[in-house]
Order: sequence, then C-alpha cells, then structure tokens
Amino acid sequence: MAARLDLGTRPRLGYSASRVDRAAERRADADAMRALESNSRARAYVIGGELIVLRKTNEGLDPLFAWAEARALAGVAETTFLGLVDGAPRFAVAIEPNAATALKDNSAFEVTDLRSIAVRGLIDADHLPPLAEGKALLGWHAHHRFCPNCGSATQAVEAGWRRDCPACQTQHFPRTDPVAIMLPVAGDRCVLGRSHRFQPGMWSCLAGYIEPGEAIEDAVRRETREEAGIACGRVAYFASQPWPFPTSLMIGCHAEAISHEIVIDRNELVDARWFDREEVASMIARKHPEGLTAPAPVAIAYHIIRAWVEDGVEFG
Amino acid sequence: MAARLDLGTRPRLGYSASRVDRAAERRADADAMRALESNSRARAYVIGGELIVLRKTNEGLDPLFAWAEARALAGVAETTFLGLVDGAPRFAVAIEPNAATALKDNSAFEVTDLRSIAVRGLIDADHLPPLAEGKALLGWHAHHRFCPNCGSATQAVEAGWRRDCPACQTQHFPRTDPVAIMLPVAGDRCVLGRSHRFQPGMWSCLAGYIEPGEAIEDAVRRETREEAGIACGRVAYFASQPWPFPTSLMIGCHAEAISHEIVIDRNELVDARWFDREEVASMIARKHPEGLTAPAPVAIAYHIIRAWVEDGVEFG
Repeated sequence: MAARLDLGTRPRLGYSASRVDRAAERRADADAMRALESNSRARAYVIGGELIVLRKTNEGLDPLFAWAEARALAGVAETTFLGLVDGAPRFAVAIEPNAATALKDNSAFEVTDLRSIAVRGLIDADHLPPLAEGKALLGWHAHHRFCPNCGSATQAVEAGWRRDCPACQTQHFPRTDPVAIMLPVAGDRCVLGRSHRFQPGMWSCLAGYIEPGEAIEDAVRRETREEAGIACGRVAYFASQPWPFPTSLMIGCHAEAISHEIVIDRNELVDARWFDREEVASMIARKHPEGLTAPAPVAIAYHIIRAWVEDGVEFG
Repeated sequence: MAARLDLGTRPRLGYSASRVDRAAERRADADAMRALESNSRARAYVIGGELIVLRKTNEGLDPLFAWAEARALAGVAETTFLGLVDGAPRFAVAIEPNAATALKDNSAFEVTDLRSIAVRGLIDADHLPPLAEGKALLGWHAHHRFCPNCGSATQAVEAGWRRDCPACQTQHFPRTDPVAIMLPVAGDRCVLGRSHRFQPGMWSCLAGYIEPGEAIEDAVRRETREEAGIACGRVAYFASQPWPFPTSLMIGCHAEAISHEIVIDRNELVDARWFDREEVASMIARKHPEGLTAPAPVAIAYHIIRAWVEDGVEFG
C-alpha cells in the first residue's frame, strides 16, 4: 500500500444518510395522513420533473414550503408523504415540469435541477436525501399512471407509495433500478472510462444496470467485460447511494481485473484506459497537469475511486 | 471470535455464479438472433408462470428443450434470449401457466416450481442461474404488456430485453426489485424472525424492499426498526443473490444492533427474538432439540446466518 495522500477531508456521500423517519406505518392510515397534512409544522418540497423549486430568503435558499404555499405555486399533479423530521411531517409535491420552468421567471424563486443543487451546495445537505426520496417517487408516478398489466388508469394510494388498478386489482409499487458501478483495479493501476455524456476531461467508474436473474458481483463482471473488454475476478462491495435520475440505486464496488487489454464498446463509452494511482490522485485533488478530473464528491464514483487511491482494496 | 463449528462444506449460493455469457450485444441484431434460433445447438427452458417444465430422461430430469420441441409443447406467449453457454444459444420460452399445469398430467414431464427444483436438487446446479434469468424476465413480460406511461399495448423487442410503446415511444426495461435482507447481531446473539409464510419451526433473516431514494444501508436500518423495533448502527454487506419470485435482487447484510428490546410489527412478522450463537448453529446443522431450523442453503439467508455463526462479522 502506498503512503496516504493528502486529498483533504472525505466529504459526505450525496443523497445518503437520511434524517427522515419514513414512518411507513402511517401511509395506509388516511385519517392520520390528513392530520399530518394539517399539522402546522408540515412542510413540502416542490418538484417539477427534473426541476426543484427553492424559495429565496434573507438567509439563503430554502427548499421547504408551507402546505398552502406549495399548493398555491401551480397545479398539483401528485403529493407524497416522505416521513417525519423531528416529528414534523415532510411531503413532496409534484407540479408539471412546464409550471416549474415558468417559475424560473419569478424572482422569488430559484429553480434548478437536483444535481446542481447538490454539486453547488445551494442548500443544507440534510435536505438532499428527502429531495432524492421525493424526486424518485414523484418521477415514478409521472410515468406510471397506467397499469402495465392491463392498460387501465391507476390511482395513487397509501400516501403516494402505491398505485392500484381498479380494473385488474393489481397493486403497483415504486420502481428502483439497481445499478452496478465499479472500479476495476490491478495493483497500482485502475481502469476509468468516459461516457458520451461526460464533460470534457472527466473520467469515471464504469457502470450499468443489474439485469434480471443476476447477482451484483456477476453484473460487475459482465459490465466490465462488455464496456471495456476487461475480465474481472473477485468483487468487493464498497457502498451504495440512491441516485434519483430517475430512480436508480448505485451499488459501488471494486473489482479485481484479471486481464489487461482494453476493448472499448463504442456504444457505451467514448474512451477507457488504465491509469496509475498517482495520476488518479492528482485528478481527485484537481491538480492534474492536463486538467483531467474525477467526478464531483456528490457521486459515489468519487468515493469508490478515492477509497482505492487512499486505502487500496482488500478482496475477501 | 468463537471456534469454528463443524457445519460441513459451505454449499453454493442458489441462482448465482452463472456460466451463461449474456452476449447482450447480440440482442439488438435481429439477423444474428434468427441465426442463433436456428443453430442446431440452440436449446430453450420452458416456463409457465411459477412452473418450470422438465423432460424425464433415462439420465434424470432435463430442463433443456430443442427449439422445435419447446414450441410444440403449448402456445408460446413470449421468447427471450438468455445468452450463450460454450457458444450454444440458450433461450427461455413462456407458455401460459394453465398450459404448464396441464403438462403435469403428461408422464413425459415433471412440472414444478423453481424453488422446489433448487431445494430438492432436481437438475444440475448450472441450470439454476439461467432459469432464474428466464423466469424473472418472462415474469416481467407477463405483467408488463401495456405502457405504464400511456396505457397502450407494448411490443417486445431486442430479443425480449425491452418493450417499446408504439404510441408514446417510451422504451421499457425489465424491472429488478432490490431487497435488503439482514441479520442484526450483537456479540454472540442475533435477531431472527418468522413471517406468516414460513413453515413451522423455521426462523430467518429480516428483509424488505429498498425504497426510492434510499441507500442499502439505510434500508437495512429502517426495516430492522420497523419489523423488530431494533435500532442498528453499522451495516456490513455480505453477498447478493438474484431471487426470481418474481423479480427480486436480495442484498445480504449483517447489521450492528444497538438496542435490545424487540417490538414486533405483526403485519410483517408472527414472531422475532434474540438467539444465541450456539442455538443458531444447531439450527443450521438441523440438530436443534426442538426442531427449529434455518432456511435451506438455496436462500442467501442461510449463508448470511452461517457466516456469522462460523466467522462472526467485522464492521468496517
């Protein structure tokens, strides 16, 4: 193991470590839910597709609206109960994406996407997990208004945590898509890739959706071989992160690369190559001579890469 | 750490360690797919809802059918490409559940569910991962024939790996539901629970679906508190397992219990209590004086529990 590098304090993983008690047992109780809605401490986040509406205040930007305020902003498409924070009810309210875009012209509000909010640190980090919860859940509602089993229109029930089909009686639960995101490593080298979507100079982990009938570890090996042509042996889980773009769960791993020649799948990646540990350290520290960078700390990829740079990996 | 107990060889985790190369790059190529279908080495698994059709042969039960054989059994509802095994194409064919039930009366076949096949060891274990792949994928098709975005009928494309909506153009991908399954532990004691569905005397891990906007570790803590009233601190990932009943991905963890009083959620569990390590060892070895048991080795719960009994847990 190389000496520890000075990369500063390790920042918090974005959207994780929620302080919200989801109080799931309350969801099915319509009377309890009405009482929570009319609670004077009830507050709501307002979400329109990819956009989050923030209130400008003298103290900075505030993502919380009183219940009546939230409902007065625009037509409400859906509401959902996120849980309790120190006993105070928190909701998320969906407005139409067009309505959110229109609020950009109102100087009382800052309207922007959740990734920018997290990366730029626009609000207290404690708001990021419930915003992720609300965005993922409301995004699911927006695109699941019909029953995939029979095609009928469905109805939201249980405070926004289920949709029921009145025709075929099927109950539909919110969807969460598990994604394997991994760093293939071999000694003091690792493989990073660049997708079409990345900003210039940024390199990151490989990633892909876990498929039906597939273990996390098998998905890590398959995706690494498909995208970069690298065979992997052992896989070590690192950490996970909700990623509400739209409804992913990122499952971060290190993988033991057992082949070396890279073959790039040009449909998935524009580039992939081996990097030395020292070069990656300079990317994390934003001191790379050619300006190459790793992802921002809001993404689990940053932490997967940094953990390997600082501590290496032990495959069990 | 206590001395290692003699519990015999640790068996393979069910449905994992697939030898199938999914060859995902072939899925979108219709010509390549037709060639694979007409390949003389092409074979298919036949699945009707929860039931798998096995051929009786002199050498035992065989889950593989030649392409024409599979199609002759019953009307084909859906087909999907699973991948290649040593270059030989493997498919899964869906027939209607009623048709599979009817084949139970045909002495040429054994028709039973995948869990029984795995627990009773009816076929070579190498078939379990592709059967899990096929069952999860075909189960998704069976209940996703309509577009959740607009209600129109959708069409299977990409060799069964996507459904497209001709009306609103949305592409739908197979669904996989991540589930947290965990053993809360404190020194030489752990918490096990019993659900309504368990056979008498069986105790297992706690488990629950990971929700939108939630990290695996947060889901472990939430579910343990909801179901058994136990607060947990650190969480250590153990392993994962596809669980195609219908489309789950089991994510196995150990959790550091930091409270002790159990409060049972009677909607979820019929019982939960603390067990000593020695008692759990006797359950795994099937030598418990009162006949209590742990789950069968096909389930990840067996492995999560056994790993703690044999090796303890290190929370990082």
